[in-house]
Amino acid sequence: MHDFHTRRRIEFSDTDMAGICHFARFFIFMETAEHEFLASLGTSVSTVEDGHKIGWPRVAASCDYLGPVRFGDVLDLHVTVVRKGRTSLTYAHEISCDGVPVARGRITAVCCRFPPHGAAEPIPIPPALAEKIEEARPVDTSGKRA
Amino acid sequence: MHDFHTRRRIEFSDTDMAGICHFARFFIFMETAEHEFLASLGTSVSTVEDGHKIGWPRVAASCDYLGPVRFGDVLDLHVTVVRKGRTSLTYAHEISCDGVPVARGRITAVCCRFPPHGAAEPIPIPPALAEKIEEARPVDTSGKRA
Amino acid sequence: MHDFHTRRRIEFSDTDMAGICHFARFFIFMETAEHEFLASLGTSVSTVEDGHKIGWPRVAASCDYLGPVRFGDVLDLHVTVVRKGRTSLTYAHEISCDGVPVARGRITAVCCRFPPHGAAEPIPIPPALAEKIEEARPVDTSGKRA
Amino acid sequence: MHDFHTRRRIEFSDTDMAGICHFARFFIFMETAEHEFLASLGTSVSTVEDGHKIGWPRVAASCDYLGPVRFGDVLDLHVTVVRKGRTSLTYAHEISCDGVPVARGRITAVCCRFPPHGAAEPIPIPPALAEKIEEARPVDTSGKRA
Repeated sequence: MHDFHTRRRIEFSDTDMAGICHFARFFIFMETAEHEFLASLGTSVSTVEDGHKIGWPRVAASCDYLGPVRFGDVLDLHVTVVRKGRTSLTYAHEISCDGVPVARGRITAVCCRFPPHGAAEPIPIPPALAEKIEEARPVDTSGKRA
Repeated sequence: MHDFHTRRRIEFSDTDMAGICHFARFFIFMETAEHEFLASLGTSVSTVEDGHKIGWPRVAASCDYLGPVRFGDVLDLHVTVVRKGRTSLTYAHEISCDGVPVARGRITAVCCRFPPHGAAEPIPIPPALAEKIEEARPVDTSGKRA
Repeated sequence: MHDFHTRRRIEFSDTDMAGICHFARFFIFMETAEHEFLASLGTSVSTVEDGHKIGWPRVAASCDYLGPVRFGDVLDLHVTVVRKGRTSLTYAHEISCDGVPVARGRITAVCCRFPPHGAAEPIPIPPALAEKIEEARPVDTSGKRA
Repeated sequence: MHDFHTRRRIEFSDTDMAGICHFARFFIFMETAEHEFLASLGTSVSTVEDGHKIGWPRVAASCDYLGPVRFGDVLDLHVTVVRKGRTSLTYAHEISCDGVPVARGRITAVCCRFPPHGAAEPIPIPPALAEKIEEARPVDTSGKRA
């Protein structure tokens, strides 16, 4: 599976004094869409393997904003895995409102084991998850599939 | 010690489409003021005692809003401990802007031990902290000290 | 109508380092539930009447926390109008998770006209809305309907 | 002027259940640092010119995360204008904690006039501001100045 779709409505607290959804909220929207994608595959962003906590810290996040969205607007979020590495996944998010693209983002997360004490250690993506994820063909710079 | 003062400036992301600071942000402001108060006493909201994590989950929070504040406004936050129980502290927060009261809130937090597994357990406030905290005389309904 | 039900799932960004949903997030949950309630009545928290912007600034908000909720938990929010004043509405929110009460809150919002310049002015609740809202019988202190 | 420095402390509400500062918060940190930079130049992100509201909607934002930061950590934020266009500014942010780089981000904002009704219109950066801002020499990929 390499494509997932979800929706969410812009809340009042998502807005700022410019009257539009605050730009940083899109990173929350993308993160939650990713988590819903993982849930749809029967896993979670927060699991335990062999007694160790597994998580997915983000190492890179970016978003281009194409147009404003406002309180009450319903966003369509399309999530694609554009790169499946040994220890990391890069998600592309195409976000639209009423069929009009409003934002396009990417998040790279690394699969890590969290020892009770000490720093997170990158580990290979658990095979049970890796085999369910298919890398999509790249999105070209015009935003259309190659 | 029973009185603490701090300041913070309203950020753009604190505002909403009504052009004012979003009401829920005041709970963040109060929480952070409480943490600065604890830091001023040489402790923290997140400590370890005898190998156990100690924290202060909130059991009650309230705020009355007296007037709007906007992007760039500087808030004065006055924190008072209005009740020191065996396991809990109740903080009163008087928040003003340019000398004008804008909000008045209360937060009650309970000192808890967090076992590695299982639920938080209320514990007596550590004596080293309890002896540094003095219960203030109550604030009357007009907002002035009795 | 005086009773409304909605649901939402705890997002990763709702959590804090204690591993649970941050207490301030409940005010967002309550606000959004209120807005969904108003939408279900065919109105909105943000409208225009006779060329004037109408909004509902909050004058009081409170919440009692009965137990922690965690990432992925689904909350049930029951919204009730417990007081319909001339210019204000007070909402009670009973929040549960898997049938267990986890929080109980109240928010009072005042219907205001926002002149292009100057401060918000309280106005009577628009009749078209007021007639759709029925005041519920009060919730007693044990949390059960009287 | 092309270089600005500010600091902020990680708040409890900035953290998530992984025990570290949530990645989306860095966009708030960068935005507020930018606003402090503009304030240091005697202007603001929200002004009025010839009776029109002027603002700076974001068109792109990105961040690379180099290491986790935790509750109580103090961040140093260094802001640089890496591109001064006719209507836009691109800011680079180098964020460190105790001298160790923890994040590196970029935000591009476009100077816009907000008509009372209708969409934001890009306009040239007001000369009074433009002449105060100097474009920095680019930061190379190793993070050191060229």
